[in-house]
Parts: sequence; structure tokens; C-alpha cells
Amino acid sequence: MKPLDSPSGMNRRVLLSTLAMLPAMSAALGPLSASAQFAPSVGLLPSWNDGPAKQAIFDFVRATIARSSPSYVFPEDRIAVFDQDGTLWVEQPMYTQVVYCLDRVPVVAAKKPELRNVEPFKTVLSGNREAIARLPMRDLWKILAATLSGMPVEEFKAEVKAWLETARHPRWNRPYTELVYQPMLELLRYLRDNAYKTYIVTGGGQDFVRVFAEKVYGIPPEQVVGTAEGTKFGYAKDGKPFLTKEPKLLLNDNNAGKPEGIHLMIGRRPYAAFGNSTGDRQMLEWTGAGAGARLKMLVLHDDATREYAYGPAQGLPDSKVGTFTQALYDEASKDGWTVISMKNDWRHIFAFE
Amino acid sequence: MKPLDSPSGMNRRVLLSTLAMLPAMSAALGPLSASAQFAPSVGLLPSWNDGPAKQAIFDFVRATIARSSPSYVFPEDRIAVFDQDGTLWVEQPMYTQVVYCLDRVPVVAAKKPELRNVEPFKTVLSGNREAIARLPMRDLWKILAATLSGMPVEEFKAEVKAWLETARHPRWNRPYTELVYQPMLELLRYLRDNAYKTYIVTGGGQDFVRVFAEKVYGIPPEQVVGTAEGTKFGYAKDGKPFLTKEPKLLLNDNNAGKPEGIHLMIGRRPYAAFGNSTGDRQMLEWTGAGAGARLKMLVLHDDATREYAYGPAQGLPDSKVGTFTQALYDEASKDGWTVISMKNDWRHIFAFE
Repeated sequence: MKPLDSPSGMNRRVLLSTLAMLPAMSAALGPLSASAQFAPSVGLLPSWNDGPAKQAIFDFVRATIARSSPSYVFPEDRIAVFDQDGTLWVEQPMYTQVVYCLDRVPVVAAKKPELRNVEPFKTVLSGNREAIARLPMRDLWKILAATLSGMPVEEFKAEVKAWLETARHPRWNRPYTELVYQPMLELLRYLRDNAYKTYIVTGGGQDFVRVFAEKVYGIPPEQVVGTAEGTKFGYAKDGKPFLTKEPKLLLNDNNAGKPEGIHLMIGRRPYAAFGNSTGDRQMLEWTGAGAGARLKMLVLHDDATREYAYGPAQGLPDSKVGTFTQALYDEASKDGWTVISMKNDWRHIFAFE
Repeated sequence: MKPLDSPSGMNRRVLLSTLAMLPAMSAALGPLSASAQFAPSVGLLPSWNDGPAKQAIFDFVRATIARSSPSYVFPEDRIAVFDQDGTLWVEQPMYTQVVYCLDRVPVVAAKKPELRNVEPFKTVLSGNREAIARLPMRDLWKILAATLSGMPVEEFKAEVKAWLETARHPRWNRPYTELVYQPMLELLRYLRDNAYKTYIVTGGGQDFVRVFAEKVYGIPPEQVVGTAEGTKFGYAKDGKPFLTKEPKLLLNDNNAGKPEGIHLMIGRRPYAAFGNSTGDRQMLEWTGAGAGARLKMLVLHDDATREYAYGPAQGLPDSKVGTFTQALYDEASKDGWTVISMKNDWRHIFAFE
């Protein structure tokens, strides 16, 4: 009998004895023997439905971790990168960080009363949601600059942490940190269990995401790459050094900025990349341009019932947040990227379901 | 009998049985019992002489890894940062990367003949060492820009790799990558063995150091923070994406740029920092400003016989390369940083000795 092709390098005997100790898994031994290539996946990624997306993940991992594989990747080279907004957690109806910045405006205005009669702060303070939604990008930048810089890095961290504890998503009335996709948490863990170093590569603020990434995703600060502004080193009156967040953009980690950010912060080409919008296109292209097996996946939000439906790819409603164009969909089809249908590929979306 | 205070959390019985299996170490059991606090260090850091520097390392590691210690640090928070030039390898008579850039000038001039009659390239091509040494900083920047940017990142990597294989240090006639300090290699390994993640934080080029850091120091590319320039994402004629190194400074990883770079690339305050010049001052201050046990060490090059002697601290000859001022020495004394005397603290300097 051909030994099972196990990703962990276990032979069949070890695998069987391991499975025998796991009642939930040993029940699956029948079908396991019948289709040996599915063996390592039994019981893994339980929130994923069987299908091409789940299979693409297993095929990739098997191809890169089996010593005998022509696409074998040394453990130290195993890098997987994940976009955050819309890929790991909900980004609708508005990016969480933008909600944070809008929520901070009253605090900032209390410290600087002169802002109260100045746009765009005046509009934000009015609470007029429609007017806020109409603010042009240059006004949004002013709000981001005013709320994301000017304070010591430790103070910013504490502010974000405190906000995350009380802020609630309007649709589910739950903390934003609970609105993470359970299938992706399982995927992160599965990749790490196979020696992949998992990184976030987000258009969101690097310092913002670092506050919760370790607790929520098991991803430490040094593995969060994001849009980054400079800091300025200085001394307090007592001589103690501190770093102040500056409104000076170092890395715009969107579009072409994603592979540029990966080079800056990681210095290796990833073997797997996960995104959900046009902002992730270049990251997936850069990943795919490497030799050997490379996994490129895009989450398509096509489930208005359980989450949201937006594209405009595949005739889904258009969206300014997390745009997934038909051109991106076509590129994915042409270049062998895998599109994850939230509706069809995910059995569960949230842990609280 | 009081149990030995072991950094690895082993109790005395386990420690003794472990030692009994190591003949070289069991011979030391006598003095070990007499001075329990030295126990975990027997056989470790063999290229270090016993003394305050070696002891400071052991004290720090013990304080941060013993679960019962008030300064215990969770493994995921254990970050140690190392300057490179003059701290991990030789920086005299000239920074290795500058030698590389000067060596590249003929290659660049062959591709762009118009540079042959333009300063500072003309002077570099003349081979007149004294004239080259007199080039002002603005001219050096022109040479760095011309030789460190304008090419795809993969091409740069291959160029540096090829150069390192043939270039030789004028004094020892050995590859630069052999001129690494054996005591520091032992220290890197000792810290990693105790779950410290070791980073290089260098004023040198991030992409330059990444080429050899993994092989020479066991430090992967993503743990090399250095002076960094931007890259630009683009497509080749065949549609394949590539990144070009751009002459656009993102991070000047010297002086205040070191803590700024640590925040940008790591996002955690280090527990240990090692340097050798005024360019490392702010990095050590930033490290020292954290709570609990923090190790701050500076290598003083006071051994002209085996390596070089320069300061001008402590009356040593002044140097433009790797300047260690008396003010830095005084700050170290005042704030409890440890100065490593190359002459007194290092039994061996190089592996080839």
C-alpha cells in the first residue's frame, strides 16, 4: 500500500496511531483510505466547505512542505501575507480605522477648540452622517493626520486599545475584533502549524493594526506591515526619550505600495498572498512572479445575508470600500489565482455564529 | 540547600544530571557549587573572559527568563538589537559597504561612460586613495546613490553576493564576512537559545546587510533593520513585475533614526541593545527607558594589536569611522550601560585566530 502523502512527513503508521487518539478524526478513516491525497486535510479548516478554494490551500501546503516535492520550500523561507480589511475582518460599511478616526475628532477638538469651526472637523462634529460620508479624500486625510499623529507612540496605543474595548459595529453590535473571519483564523493557524510565518500587509495604519493583531490573529507587531508614518525621537523634561507619531508618510501600503512594503519590511518574496480588492493586486502579482508553487487567493464578498455583497465584479453591487473589479476577477481567472466565494466556500463566517 | 537559580527554569537535580552528561562541564561542578549564581554560564560564551561584561550578560538573561524573576519577560517580547559595523564585524579602516560602493564605480562607469569625467567618479576611477579618502560627504552620497540604486532588487542582491565572495580586507586578506567577532556570534546564539529574537539595526544599507546576515549571523532578512531607500514596483516587457531600487531615502537608520527604525520595523521596545559608537546612543537610550531589566552594551575598540584602537573616548585615537566619544563613555558610566573592552573582555576576536 502506498504510504499516505502527509504534509508533516509522518508515515502512515504514525498518522494512523495519531488519528486513533483523536476520536473525532478516527471516524473519518474510511474515506481517508479511499482518497489518499485528502488525508492530511481531515478535520482541518472546519469552517471551510469542501471545494476548489479549500483544495487549493491543501495542495499548496502539501507542495511546499513535502521534502520530496519539487516545490519544497525551506521552513525559514515560508512567508504568507494577508491583507486585513475585507480579508481578515469586516470592512463594511466603513474601514474600522476610519471609524476610529471619526470617533476621535471630538477628543481632538476638545484639546484644540479652534478646530470646532474648521472643516472637515465641523462636519464630523455635527454628527450628520450623510455629510460625513460625502467628505472628499483630502478632508479624510486631514482627519487621519489630526487623529493618528502628534502623540507619543505609547499614548496612541493606549487610545486605540481603549476604543476597541468600547466601540461596536453598527450591524452586529459587537466589538470590531470579533468581526474576524473564522475561516481565515483557521487558515492562519494551519499555515503557522506548517512553519509559515504569517504577516499582515494592510493598507490600514501599521501602528493601528499592531495594537490588536497579536491578540486577535496571533500575529506579533513585527509581522504587521501597514501604511506607516514616521516617528520623531525626542526627550521629555525628565530626560526620558520618547517617540512621537509624525504626519509624514513613509509607506502607503496599498497597490504597488504592498510589494514595496513587503520588500522594505520582510525582504523576502512571499509564497502565499491573500487579499480581497484591487489594492491587493500587485501584492498577488509579486507573489505569483516567484518560482515554484505560490498561492494567490482573493476573498469575494458575495454573501449579503451573512456579511456583505460587493464587487462590482460578477455583477455584485459596486463599493468604494474594498472594490473588487471585474478586471481583477478576470486577471485572477487568467493567472490561476483562486477566488474564495464567501457564500459558497465558507461554512461559518464568524466564531459567534 | 538553596536550589540553583537557573535561567532555563531547570531545578538543581535536572541541572546536575544534565551537567553529568557533559564531561567538559561536569569538571566545573566544584566552583559551580561554591558560587551558585555563575552556574548557568559554565561553558557558555567561551570567547569571553570572565569579568563585568560577561557577568552583565548572564545577569540580564537570568533576570528576564526565570519565571520567578520580577523582571521576567515573556518569550514573544524578547527582542535584542545589534548594530553591525564595529559591533558585529570590523568597520576599519572603512565601512565595508563604502568599499563595495567604491569598487562598483568602474562597473557603473562602464555602463554610463559620461560619468568618467564627472566628479566624484573621476577621482574614484583615478585610484588615488588619498584623494578618495578626502571626498566630502556630499560626494560619497553621489557614489552611494549611483551604486546602490537604479537596479532591480534581485540584481543588487546578486552583485553584493558576488562581491563578497572575492573582496578581501586589506589587513587580514580575508573575506569581510570572516571578520565577524566570535564573542558576538556566541552572544547572538546564547540569546537566541534563550528565546530572544535577534535583530540587526544598522546604519548600513538594509538591502546590503540582508544579503549575508542569514548565513553569517543566523539573522534572516526580516530581522535586518537598516538605512533603507524606497523601491518602485513596475512591469517588465513580458508583464513580469519587478522592484527597482530607488535613490529615495525612507529611513536613515543612525542616531535618532535607530529607535525610529525599531518602531517602524519591529514595533516593540528591545530588552537588549548592543552598539559601539555615537550612532547607537539613542538606540541604547530607547532600550534603557523601558521598565524591568534592560541590557545596554557598547563595544570599545581598545585593541590595536588584535584589531583596532579608536575612540576618542578614554584617550584612544580619534576616528571618523565608528566614533566613540568621551561623552558617550560618560553617559554609559552614569546610566549603568556596560562598556565591553575588546582588549580585556574578549579572549578571542575572530574564529580564525
